[in-house]
This record gives sequence, structure tokens and C-alpha cells, in this order.
Amino acid sequence: MMRVYLDHNATTPLRPEARAAMIAAMDVCGNPSSVHAEGRAAKAVVEKARAQVAAAFGAEGADIVFTSSATEAAALALKDRGLHGCALEHDAVRAWIKEDLPVAADGLVAVSDPARSTLQLANSETGLLQDLPQGLAVTDATQGFGKLPVAFNWLGAEMALISAHKLGGPKGIGALVMKRGTDLAAQIKGGGQEMGRRSGTENVIGIAGFGAAAEAAARDLADGVWSRVEKLRNILENALEAGAKSTIFVGKGRPRLPNTLCLATPGWKGETQVMQMDLAGFAISAGSACSSGKVRSSAVLQAMGFDEATATSAIRVSLGPETTETDVLRFAEAWLDKEKKHRARAA
Amino acid sequence: MMRVYLDHNATTPLRPEARAAMIAAMDVCGNPSSVHAEGRAAKAVVEKARAQVAAAFGAEGADIVFTSSATEAAALALKDRGLHGCALEHDAVRAWIKEDLPVAADGLVAVSDPARSTLQLANSETGLLQDLPQGLAVTDATQGFGKLPVAFNWLGAEMALISAHKLGGPKGIGALVMKRGTDLAAQIKGGGQEMGRRSGTENVIGIAGFGAAAEAAARDLADGVWSRVEKLRNILENALEAGAKSTIFVGKGRPRLPNTLCLATPGWKGETQVMQMDLAGFAISAGSACSSGKVRSSAVLQAMGFDEATATSAIRVSLGPETTETDVLRFAEAWLDKEKKHRARAA
Repeated sequence: MMRVYLDHNATTPLRPEARAAMIAAMDVCGNPSSVHAEGRAAKAVVEKARAQVAAAFGAEGADIVFTSSATEAAALALKDRGLHGCALEHDAVRAWIKEDLPVAADGLVAVSDPARSTLQLANSETGLLQDLPQGLAVTDATQGFGKLPVAFNWLGAEMALISAHKLGGPKGIGALVMKRGTDLAAQIKGGGQEMGRRSGTENVIGIAGFGAAAEAAARDLADGVWSRVEKLRNILENALEAGAKSTIFVGKGRPRLPNTLCLATPGWKGETQVMQMDLAGFAISAGSACSSGKVRSSAVLQAMGFDEATATSAIRVSLGPETTETDVLRFAEAWLDKEKKHRARAA
Repeated sequence: MMRVYLDHNATTPLRPEARAAMIAAMDVCGNPSSVHAEGRAAKAVVEKARAQVAAAFGAEGADIVFTSSATEAAALALKDRGLHGCALEHDAVRAWIKEDLPVAADGLVAVSDPARSTLQLANSETGLLQDLPQGLAVTDATQGFGKLPVAFNWLGAEMALISAHKLGGPKGIGALVMKRGTDLAAQIKGGGQEMGRRSGTENVIGIAGFGAAAEAAARDLADGVWSRVEKLRNILENALEAGAKSTIFVGKGRPRLPNTLCLATPGWKGETQVMQMDLAGFAISAGSACSSGKVRSSAVLQAMGFDEATATSAIRVSLGPETTETDVLRFAEAWLDKEKKHRARAA
């Protein structure tokens, strides 16, 4: 039986446009820093992609600094600044912040000093959206970019972190987007690439894939693809809710990503559900993807006030543009079957 | 007329094996940190490549930490350590060292305190090789790996920097190789990937390309491909030397990379030569590739005692496995023609 991939917030399949752009870039042999024709051709690939990302993210006129991941962009934007932030953030952000912004039970965060704070655009586990204050220092827009009609130039943030592999681009390429002229100390030094902000020979093939994926993602968004995905997510959520009476649907009815569904079934570990559904042919996750398959209680749910038993029982189902109604109905049937068996065992 | 690429020390064309591995990896959609089947498949791609790189670099049993470039690996290995080093090093290394190791006129560097020093294996501009002392803290093996029969486990260094795009792999992926268990503080924090030493979702496609390229490079080396390249380099060098009487051939007759030729023609700027040869259909470089096409006097040649006029007139011609005798003879003819015209103008 065909497997169904419902873990798009962890990473996405490569879009055909990204694949084609990457294969084309494989024939460009020069180093973008070289002055000869081969070097200039490589530089052109990078600059085309930079313009594509800027257009897709509504960041025309801003500086796009390509990095190896949003995680690297987070270090570049946040290290040694001691910005205020909250426990909803990704570990790559939490590593650098003063975690002192309170999270309300509905998952919303109030920022008192925007210029000295960071706040995510959308949460990777629950999909819940934040209302970003004007003048915010940094926003992690990784989960929002490509799924929401946002533009960096209207977000009100000085800097944003984005990643290619959350919108159909390759893994291993991200960017720090910043208002033009913002001061920033380089952390990886050497050849002075990326306007001196981030040295190292550019990942030309990956950057080409990021540009093409961003352009395709913007087109999908304009074409209403995510409205269709949202309908499927809601069909799935309603089907699960109808059958699983003790399950909590986190964020239901509140502004959230169109593709994300977070549900907790106290007493049934998220980790167990992920393994059971994997065996049944479905890829989902418990909390955000972390290294070495380590599975922990969701810090996000705990920050929202859920107890540990509930947080440990959460799973995330995240749909993508290629998800079909058959996929979600098959998932609902399989998961409800497991849930019934779980209840029978627990009784 | 077909262009001739003779700038392999700046970057190399993608090997067919790397291309195939990358295209295959494009179909692996999971995140290596996810526990489901798609995640495990992505993890398997990364671990296969890690084993390929370890085998090709003679680093079995060592830790291979994939980074986005040798430049990032340099920052990871060197930042905040204040190691001793010399002016022959790449800017990515020079950014972090105490530049106090003297360079002899023959380009050799004597290291008095190996445990507190870094020294490159081979120079990118001249190709000159260093005799690495046992117990050296860090070596930049970027130019040597893939062209020389070296093994990390026999080099005597605690850590080595390597890069995929110098041996036929993609740009944007490198590694820090370190003796197992060496202590190292992460600089990019978050999900805890790469044994906690370097966070960020892995560049799965690029890593797959690195592994396949490293394996192919090791096979080429065993097959004597670089002996053939060395013969072509020597044919070229002898042809140029026979026609250009005032040109200095740096490193000739001394142990150096088999593919590298460095020549200085005082009074004729390297930058000008690069442009003239580019127009004539040949890609070469003046010094190492730097950002934004900035061209400077070679710090490497100056460190070896050459005056600025000579250092500014240096060019580097670097061959690759696909270089043919026709390529080098065509280059010799074209360059000697320009050199004659330069002399006529200067007279």
C-alpha cells in the first residue's frame, strides 16, 4: 500500500520546480566568487534565486543572506543579543533567548518590548499564529513562509528566519532576511561572501532549489491551494473529533496554519501513536523533529498550560499541497481504529 | 569554441557519481530526525555518505561532522582558540588564528607547538605541500583531500577541514573531521543534529553528493588519474617556461599538488591575465577565489617573500581529472601569445 506523508511541518517533498532548477544548476561549474565566465554564471544562479525568494516573501529591497538552515539564520540573528522570547519557539531560537515572555492558554504571546524580542509567526506543532508587533527584532517565519499570505515588508519585523525545506525546497538551505542596511556581525568568516555577513562558497544547487520552490509556493498560495488543504485538514479534524471523545484538538477554531492539526489523547503516548501509524503506512510526528529520534514531552503544549500527561500524548498531523481527501480519510480510519484499541486496552 | 576550465582549486565540475546520488536523494522526502520510515530513509542517506567520506579520507573511526562548507568547519574548529598559524592559510582560517608562524622562502612552515597550531596540508594558490607535525591541532585539508594519497588517521592532526566541491562534489557542503571523542563546543545550536556539534536539518542532497564524490575521488586516486594530471601540468609548465623567460614558476620542483601551477610575470597583473584568458576561452584565477570578484595581491606569495609587484602578477592554473593534453596545449599557446603582446607593449 502507498505510504501517506503527513509530516510536512517537519520537511516537505521536493517540488518538481525545485528539482528541475537544481538539476540545471548542476551543470554550472564555476565558483560564484570567480570573475571568469563560469564564475559569473554561478553568481547569476545565486542572484536569480535571491530575487525569487525576495519576491515570494514580499521582501523586495530587503537583504537576503543565504545560510545553511533557518537554524544557522537563528544563530546569526540572535546570538549574544539576549532578546526576550518564549517557550513556544523552536530549539534553534530557544538556544539564544531570555525565555521570559509569558504564553497565554490560547497560545498567544504578548510582547512588551518588540525591539528587544523575538516571536515566531506560526508554531510548528500547533500551527497557531501570532500577531506580530511592529518593530519586532526577529521573527521565525519558517513555518509561515509559503503557507500564509505574508510579506516581510509588511510583517513589521526587522529580521526573519526562513527555510527552503518547509516549502518544497531542499534541506540544508535557509536565509536570514533583514531590512536593508541592518548591522550584523558575521559568525562564519573568511571569503566575505553574502555581503560579508556569512562566508563560505555558496550552496549554488541548493540556492537554485530554494528560489524555484519559493516561486512555486507563492504561485500555489495565489492559486488557493492552501484553502483546499485547509478544507482537508478540517475534514480530518472533524472526522477524528467525531470518533475520539477524549481527544483534545489543540488550537481548533483559532487562527492557525491551514495544514496543521495537533491532537492530544491523554494516556496514549504520542511516540507510540507515531510508531503505530508508521507501521500502518502514515508519517506523522510527536512534537517537532529533533535529532536522533529523541522524543520528549512537547514544550509547546506545556507552555500553553497543558499538563505533562497531555503534552506527552500529543501528535502533529501536517498536510501538504499534494495531500488528497483519500489520504486524510484513510488516516482518520486507521487512527480511529488504533484509538479504539487503545481505549479497549486501557479499560 | 569550447571553453577550457582550469580553475579546479576554486571549485570543480560535479562528478557524474555525485550528480546521480543527488538526484536519487531528491526522492527521499523525510527529515533525518524523524522516526518514521521516511525519516529513517533520509538518515540512511546521510549515514551512507558519512561512511563514504570516512573511507575516502582514511578517517574510519573518526567523527565526521557535516557542515555547510570548510569555512564553517574552520569556524567550528578554530574560533576562540587562538591557535598559531601562518599567512599561507585561507581567509577562513586566518580569521581565527594568531598569525605568528614564519613562512620560509620555499613556502614551508615550521611548527613549534603543534597542539596549539594549525597548518594547511596543501596551498590553494601554489599547491605546495606541508609536512604536518604529529599532534597538530587542526589542518586545512581542503585542497589535499581527493588529490593526494592521504589518510586522516595517519596525518597526525586532531582535526581536519574538508570540502566536497574541491573534489567533484557540490558546493555548500563540507565537514570537520575529528578524532573520536574530541571535545567541541557547538556554534550553531538547536535540534542537536550531528552528535550535538552542529544543529540544523541536514543538507541530505548535498551530503549524498559529497559521499559519492569522495568515493569516486578515492577511486581516481587509486587508478593513477592524478599521475596523468601531473604529467599534463608538467607539460604545460615546461611549455610556458620555454616561451616566457621573465616568468617565475612558483614551487616548481618542490612537493606540491599534482594539478596546480602558479606563475608570476612581474609587470603583468594577474587580474589582467585572468580577464584576457577568460575572453580567450580559459577559466583560471589570480589568487584564491574571494567574494564579489575582489582581486588582491596574493598574501600567499607575499608570505613567501615575493615583492608586491610579483605577488600581484601571479596566476593560478589548476587542472582536473577531465583536463586533456589538447586543453593544456591550447592554453599554453593562447597564454604565450598574450605574454608576447604584453612584452611588446611594455617594451
